[in-house]
Amino acid sequence: MEKETLHCKVTVRIMTDRKAFGPGVAEILTGIRKYHSLRGAARQMGMSYTKAWTIIREAEKIWGFSLTQRHAGGKEGGSSVLTEPARIVLERYEAMSRELHELAEQKFQQYFNEEELRKLRK
Amino acid sequence: MEKETLHCKVTVRIMTDRKAFGPGVAEILTGIRKYHSLRGAARQMGMSYTKAWTIIREAEKIWGFSLTQRHAGGKEGGSSVLTEPARIVLERYEAMSRELHELAEQKFQQYFNEEELRKLRK
Repeated sequence: MEKETLHCKVTVRIMTDRKAFGPGVAEILTGIRKYHSLRGAARQMGMSYTKAWTIIREAEKIWGFSLTQRHAGGKEGGSSVLTEPARIVLERYEAMSRELHELAEQKFQQYFNEEELRKLRK
Repeated sequence: MEKETLHCKVTVRIMTDRKAFGPGVAEILTGIRKYHSLRGAARQMGMSYTKAWTIIREAEKIWGFSLTQRHAGGKEGGSSVLTEPARIVLERYEAMSRELHELAEQKFQQYFNEEELRKLRK
């Protein structure tokens, strides 16, 4: 049996019956913030441009505002930046995820610390 | 554009580099608790018996203890019950999920209430 340490992971999704925001959208937007390009963001994730584009468009339909703004021109056919509301949503999503991650760590240490695991295993 | 309400959803996973516990394992164990049968639990989820069995065995390897106990005999080839440690892990996982869900709801209402969404949309 392997002996890697148990830990917990929390995923936050904002949705209607369809997904408006989750780790995937967050990663694409973070990539755009970094590379100023949807193509660059998709490439970094090993995702096709078309798939990244579709995910962003679907999310925009649910939020009711644009997440990215395109500027024409340049070597790779223009650049993209986050819109102001996208920047705010991303920051709040990151803050929520961080706060939930902290509570999860705390609860995990309470319920599943080494001592508790030893009791469960015996 | 559809007008379903935005809400948030939190998923908790307990893992090493492999998954030890998450919504899938929790649903199978909840099914076993209800139906006293892995086959019954899998059927309820529209999952094959073999897949459910594999998920449980993989999780057991990581935890280092058995999650289910089989009793031979009966019409459908025996019954299964949760072991005591499985019952405890399931209860603590459910408690963690509930507490995280409550914090997520609270943060979501703070960051993405109707007033905030209106500001983002204008």
